[in-house]
Amino acid sequence: MTTSTHSRIFDVGIFGFIKILLRGAAQVMFQCNAWCGLLFIVGIFWGAYSSGMPEVGWGALLGVMVSTATGFILNLQQEEGFEGLWGFNGILVGCAFPTFLGNTVWMWFALALCAAFTTWVRTGLNNLMRGWGINSFTFPFVLCVWFFLLASHTMHSIPPLNTSSHVLSTLHGIHFHLGLDGAWEVVKVWLRGLSQVFLIDSWVTGLLFFLGLCASNRWAALWAVIGSALSMGMAIVMGLPVEHINEGLYSFSAVLTAIALAVTFYEPSWRSAAWAALGIMVTVVVQAAMNVWVQPFGIASLTAPFCITTWLFLLPMFRFDDKHPDHTAWHHRS
Amino acid sequence: MTTSTHSRIFDVGIFGFIKILLRGAAQVMFQCNAWCGLLFIVGIFWGAYSSGMPEVGWGALLGVMVSTATGFILNLQQEEGFEGLWGFNGILVGCAFPTFLGNTVWMWFALALCAAFTTWVRTGLNNLMRGWGINSFTFPFVLCVWFFLLASHTMHSIPPLNTSSHVLSTLHGIHFHLGLDGAWEVVKVWLRGLSQVFLIDSWVTGLLFFLGLCASNRWAALWAVIGSALSMGMAIVMGLPVEHINEGLYSFSAVLTAIALAVTFYEPSWRSAAWAALGIMVTVVVQAAMNVWVQPFGIASLTAPFCITTWLFLLPMFRFDDKHPDHTAWHHRS
Amino acid sequence: MTTSTHSRIFDVGIFGFIKILLRGAAQVMFQCNAWCGLLFIVGIFWGAYSSGMPEVGWGALLGVMVSTATGFILNLQQEEGFEGLWGFNGILVGCAFPTFLGNTVWMWFALALCAAFTTWVRTGLNNLMRGWGINSFTFPFVLCVWFFLLASHTMHSIPPLNTSSHVLSTLHGIHFHLGLDGAWEVVKVWLRGLSQVFLIDSWVTGLLFFLGLCASNRWAALWAVIGSALSMGMAIVMGLPVEHINEGLYSFSAVLTAIALAVTFYEPSWRSAAWAALGIMVTVVVQAAMNVWVQPFGIASLTAPFCITTWLFLLPMFRFDDKHPDHTAWHHRS
Repeated sequence: MTTSTHSRIFDVGIFGFIKILLRGAAQVMFQCNAWCGLLFIVGIFWGAYSSGMPEVGWGALLGVMVSTATGFILNLQQEEGFEGLWGFNGILVGCAFPTFLGNTVWMWFALALCAAFTTWVRTGLNNLMRGWGINSFTFPFVLCVWFFLLASHTMHSIPPLNTSSHVLSTLHGIHFHLGLDGAWEVVKVWLRGLSQVFLIDSWVTGLLFFLGLCASNRWAALWAVIGSALSMGMAIVMGLPVEHINEGLYSFSAVLTAIALAVTFYEPSWRSAAWAALGIMVTVVVQAAMNVWVQPFGIASLTAPFCITTWLFLLPMFRFDDKHPDHTAWHHRS
Repeated sequence: MTTSTHSRIFDVGIFGFIKILLRGAAQVMFQCNAWCGLLFIVGIFWGAYSSGMPEVGWGALLGVMVSTATGFILNLQQEEGFEGLWGFNGILVGCAFPTFLGNTVWMWFALALCAAFTTWVRTGLNNLMRGWGINSFTFPFVLCVWFFLLASHTMHSIPPLNTSSHVLSTLHGIHFHLGLDGAWEVVKVWLRGLSQVFLIDSWVTGLLFFLGLCASNRWAALWAVIGSALSMGMAIVMGLPVEHINEGLYSFSAVLTAIALAVTFYEPSWRSAAWAALGIMVTVVVQAAMNVWVQPFGIASLTAPFCITTWLFLLPMFRFDDKHPDHTAWHHRS
Repeated sequence: MTTSTHSRIFDVGIFGFIKILLRGAAQVMFQCNAWCGLLFIVGIFWGAYSSGMPEVGWGALLGVMVSTATGFILNLQQEEGFEGLWGFNGILVGCAFPTFLGNTVWMWFALALCAAFTTWVRTGLNNLMRGWGINSFTFPFVLCVWFFLLASHTMHSIPPLNTSSHVLSTLHGIHFHLGLDGAWEVVKVWLRGLSQVFLIDSWVTGLLFFLGLCASNRWAALWAVIGSALSMGMAIVMGLPVEHINEGLYSFSAVLTAIALAVTFYEPSWRSAAWAALGIMVTVVVQAAMNVWVQPFGIASLTAPFCITTWLFLLPMFRFDDKHPDHTAWHHRS
């Protein structure tokens, strides 16, 4: 928080602010590209409306706006804000609240409070982690939403929608049995693994997310689909429940691990590719573990498996090329 | 631990030691003032005897004595000891053990071991957190008591009193229904929010705590009552269980967050006041979340919601005035 | 990870590699001595075959080989590898997997993946903890095995053996009632406390482990038996379940705490002896607490009580002699 009073929210202009919001959507997958973010938001709205839950789309918009505006109000470091780094936790909060909580007035108040909260929690956790060369990723979203989801079991003003389920709610119910159907069904599962990054269960949304990544960085697009495919294979081999695999629920964290390790924090190479492939497999195990761990509390593991696995793969600070490993590069570059 | 052999426990003198003990009581609410501590201890004994649980008062005395003596025996940094910073975790241990555990001989042994344990856990956690500009607060109390409360479910020598309840035990049973009674009932709930800082459920004790704060720092006294009132309001709005609100169980952590953010780690100002108000509201959510989280384990969340929320509000290292934010100031100043 | 391409796994030679593996076994109890490790492995195989679970012995061998080879493949710091510090987490993984998981093909794949995982998790956690002067100890083993044990409840390819039990599985069923039998029975319980360090329940194995320690460091052997005896006494006094005390389940973490505090991180002296005795007693409480804490998740607390207690006793950075406390000495010395 600098003492400068410049660059407040009103100085950016309406188009500048919209561009920052779109970049906020794109930063969920480590991209700093407004077109990518636009395709992500179109994908979110498609998935929300096609499954009869339009409030997920509007929640996403409110979340990214509130968390980005909070960064301006707290006068945080400008460069990060312009790169969309204030918004990506908030947009995920906005997708999660209407998915897990009842559509009451106080849910929208809690959504806004939680989205704002992620902005300074991110600043704080990044301060905490800076010395280890790592970043808080989407963990501010995970931590803040966990507080509200746990609280929803005793706060009657924000009742939980799915108290008995420990997995992400499913927005529609097409159950696909692997091996019985054709390649087209496999491709749809594959794409749903991408769409679940924003808690959406729709292959069309997954395709829009893939196109958004292509618009920004083709390596990221490639590794997103590798992450989704490899995690689907690992989940089948390890005997995880078919209905969850089918909805892409074992792939969304692996997609993020893949983009982080193969493209964002290491340069694409054979060694970083092997490292990312290992990370994808471990993410599936960590996700299965966390699903069991959070089950008694009636909450979802969200993207925590991605955060934990990627930290465990970055903390050793290996280098696969001649450059020094700069794991904070995401800040400065994207 | 310095190599100096001076300043051991016997050099202080009996009156000096009593003064250090009283400051230890006061430091639970960030005050370094023996008169404040005296009023706190009077309040604890009033609440303990009036509810038929005198062992809570004697436990508090034993706890503060053992943990302070441990600091002398381990020859820790003297300045902290003279400011009462070895005692505040121990006095809370002393209040918690007779509240949650059966009155056996081994409970008193465990109380003394746990109170002593907090003293070096505090030193260790402060070493761990120093680099981030934060302090362990009452978390040594929380962590060490959690170990013993969890263990009590399998250690037959220290049986739990309330295995089925996940909230703090209630010392008396006057159930008040908000909105049906008059302003006097609201004031009593308000004061019970203060008394619960030491796990006491008594409005008289809350009043004595308020007077103790007035004797030390009027800003702290003001923010204690603001914290209790605002958290009560937030708890009502969010639909938390009325019987717990009535006993002040959603206010004690918020009272500590309020004093920490508004008075102790920031200078009183409009901006720090807004920041503290936000912290009070978030504390209520974190407390509701932690109550759900600890429920399966048959333990209480203690003051963990205060610690976690205050850390999340201090870690971003915001500054609201021209001074550099010195979040370790509590050590040196109070 | 240095850029040097020397000292890869094939340069060490078969006898050099075997020596490194044996040291890896010995490092579980902080010893860098191949004879000690040989006696440990003989003890593991004795316990495994005598209880009809030979796969525990072969798992231990596979675990130490995979995790050590991973250190070579990742080209980690050589000195640590030659001291056996890549292998001690892996051998524990190898003992734990066949003890807790069904003997399927995928269990062996998961065992190898988990053993390899511990090697870079150890590097990462040591990077994380270096600034606080502490070491990750066996926590990489604990963390990685927790992931797989939790996941086993939903991964059908690696089914759990004992879903209803929250304690370590017992390899044979001799139930001994303290006080009814003679001194010989007490001695057997005492030695089983040592054998459980590698999840083995056999007094013969405990005796072999004791002889192995004698071959390396007599202070360590002495403190191992003090740790086992004192924790047995503390467990009896605190009323912990007799059947678990009998199997040595409240002693194995205390044995490690004893060797760490009395011999490894402090020079043997009266003051470090008192500190270690306190650490042994606290370890029993932390273990009882963690057993209750992990019970709802159907996993074991493993050596986490040792890690947590020893961290809490090292973090204050006390010094008991004129030397500066170098808590990272284990790296460089043993």
